Amino acid sequence: MSERPFRYDLLQQSGQARRGVFHTPHGLVQTPAFMPVGTQGTVKGLEIGLVRETGAEMILGNTYHLSLRPGEQIVRELGGLHEFSGWRGPILTDSGGFQIFSLAQMAKITEEGAVFRSHIDGSKVSLSPERSIEIQEALGSDVAMVLDHVVALPNEADVIRQACDRSIRWAARCQQAATRDDQAQFAIVQGGLDEKLRIYCAEELGKLEFPGYAIGGLSVGEPPPEMYRILDVTCPVLPTDRPRYLMGVGRPEDLLEGVRRGVDLFDCVMPTRNGRNALAFTDEGTLRLRNAKYQTDKRPISPTSPERVRQHSRGYIRHLFMAKEMLGPILLTLQNLAYYQQLMAGARQAIEEDRFEAFYEQKMNSWRNGDE
Amino acid sequence: MSERPFRYDLLQQSGQARRGVFHTPHGLVQTPAFMPVGTQGTVKGLEIGLVRETGAEMILGNTYHLSLRPGEQIVRELGGLHEFSGWRGPILTDSGGFQIFSLAQMAKITEEGAVFRSHIDGSKVSLSPERSIEIQEALGSDVAMVLDHVVALPNEADVIRQACDRSIRWAARCQQAATRDDQAQFAIVQGGLDEKLRIYCAEELGKLEFPGYAIGGLSVGEPPPEMYRILDVTCPVLPTDRPRYLMGVGRPEDLLEGVRRGVDLFDCVMPTRNGRNALAFTDEGTLRLRNAKYQTDKRPISPTSPERVRQHSRGYIRHLFMAKEMLGPILLTLQNLAYYQQLMAGARQAIEEDRFEAFYEQKMNSWRNGDE
Repeated sequence: MSERPFRYDLLQQSGQARRGVFHTPHGLVQTPAFMPVGTQGTVKGLEIGLVRETGAEMILGNTYHLSLRPGEQIVRELGGLHEFSGWRGPILTDSGGFQIFSLAQMAKITEEGAVFRSHIDGSKVSLSPERSIEIQEALGSDVAMVLDHVVALPNEADVIRQACDRSIRWAARCQQAATRDDQAQFAIVQGGLDEKLRIYCAEELGKLEFPGYAIGGLSVGEPPPEMYRILDVTCPVLPTDRPRYLMGVGRPEDLLEGVRRGVDLFDCVMPTRNGRNALAFTDEGTLRLRNAKYQTDKRPISPTSPERVRQHSRGYIRHLFMAKEMLGPILLTLQNLAYYQQLMAGARQAIEEDRFEAFYEQKMNSWRNGDE
Repeated sequence: MSERPFRYDLLQQSGQARRGVFHTPHGLVQTPAFMPVGTQGTVKGLEIGLVRETGAEMILGNTYHLSLRPGEQIVRELGGLHEFSGWRGPILTDSGGFQIFSLAQMAKITEEGAVFRSHIDGSKVSLSPERSIEIQEALGSDVAMVLDHVVALPNEADVIRQACDRSIRWAARCQQAATRDDQAQFAIVQGGLDEKLRIYCAEELGKLEFPGYAIGGLSVGEPPPEMYRILDVTCPVLPTDRPRYLMGVGRPEDLLEGVRRGVDLFDCVMPTRNGRNALAFTDEGTLRLRNAKYQTDKRPISPTSPERVRQHSRGYIRHLFMAKEMLGPILLTLQNLAYYQQLMAGARQAIEEDRFEAFYEQKMNSWRNGDE
């Protein structure tokens, strides 16, 4: 058995790309890995057995949403998030930091924490580092994220620096608040697009010896090359023996750009949200299934689609979207999650065979002919 | 092989209840059977493999809906309704008669056929007996229904009799219009709640030697005992060597009342539509999953729920409905379709063992303690 409960084993490298295994109380995660987002205790539109069929090994739940509805005590009473959702593998919960930034109304942030109004019923809610950990411990996820202070980009240097310093202090408070030894905490590196600040933040958090490190505050509207630049400087400062998680990212190309720079874990609503909106990710790029050109197209979405999707024509799936049938979103969610998992499996194999750069080039070229 | 392509073999009786097998080009149907409704080429909310998992052997598609969207020629170009929907077993299509009655706007019915406005875009559409068969042949279902003239109940005797006579004439025209020998037509007995008219209609249609007979124009608002009374007089007049199909019915108790009077086939939107609206059918009666009493209920919907449903608590499923997650409707659709199939399987076994009446009594008693 593992000497550390949340051990990360680095198995192989290909350039900066890392092939590893992350150990959790609910099983192993082969990395690089993509985590489907199950915001409210369900990956939207998919029966949990079908999520498993896509090859996913770890999913994400949202502290902000679950604490508002049904409330973390209800989840706890119903056996914790694994039992609640039916997902028996590893689960990561975010801290609520990003949702305070993106969803909450009239958020006011002080050193103590955030006070805001719920997007559901407008009621007043407080979220401090200690409270975020309390919620995540009640949910019982394998990995809890520390509460961070996310700011919009671009922003004033002072605002970014203060949010970054606060995020470091909050990370330490989260660590202090932990009471469960079957739950790991990942720290979150902030610092906007300021390379020096990112390095400083990573080094400060590194001193606190978290079992994993996330890179946060990206994919909030900045051009992708800016994100890659920040990854270029941040990843080398992170400990090599801990998993690295790029939060909320992203498009297939962003995943490969991340892997190429040494990122191990990803999550994003893109495959599920875009799937519900008739967009399919494939090796030939994206397909917009509402497009009239698919009306009598007998071909499946892709020859590599999972069987439940491949048995149907593009024409049929277009019909489902035009007729507003639930099965359209269901099938494209399945397609996209399976595609993301296949992409990560391909990346893992390419790293094992030390040909990640060729894999990266081949995929980037294959995506040039899509509908957008 | 069968001497007739759409043979019905009566295997066993228990009272009036019939245990049989209906032969179609796409396989056998063990009867009595319940057909899930796939109005627009999809059983709402369920991936087709999950529909199969419930034990369903035959599904229903809607001529009216599919001819308006995507259009039957599109379905034909995409390989016909089996290939289109991914359902490779037997399919029955209705004729559009009931939708003209229930959905179409400003329907005007003459001897030639119906002219009405589409509920989708208000465009003018015609549907004659010949056109209904043309559409159903393009869809390529195993069983096509003749076009009938459905009227509201209660209604004037004259109106009911004229619609009944017209339905008989239209049935003959449908029969004349048939060009596919891999598609059977079922006639539809009309006649409102008038026993003599029902018997007359069944006898007249019987002379036309259809491979199957439906009982239509019921479950349109009349009290259930009125429907049972009509079944009591109609079933004995129908040929014993052809399947009998009670259209659009119904609740679990209505299914057993139908089987008890010799009905072989049923369809209804109730398990799917009510499932999407948080109502679960179980052996303990119906559960309304939005009810607050289920908030922390750890029990599954039922011990006999299919595994994909049984793995979840009632509390979780309630949460899904409160949070408006698609998975709520998905899971209860699965629950209800599986429950209807289990009920029919139980009925078939009870008939085989000549104890249908005891089975009927036991089920009717078990349903008394539900939420409504």
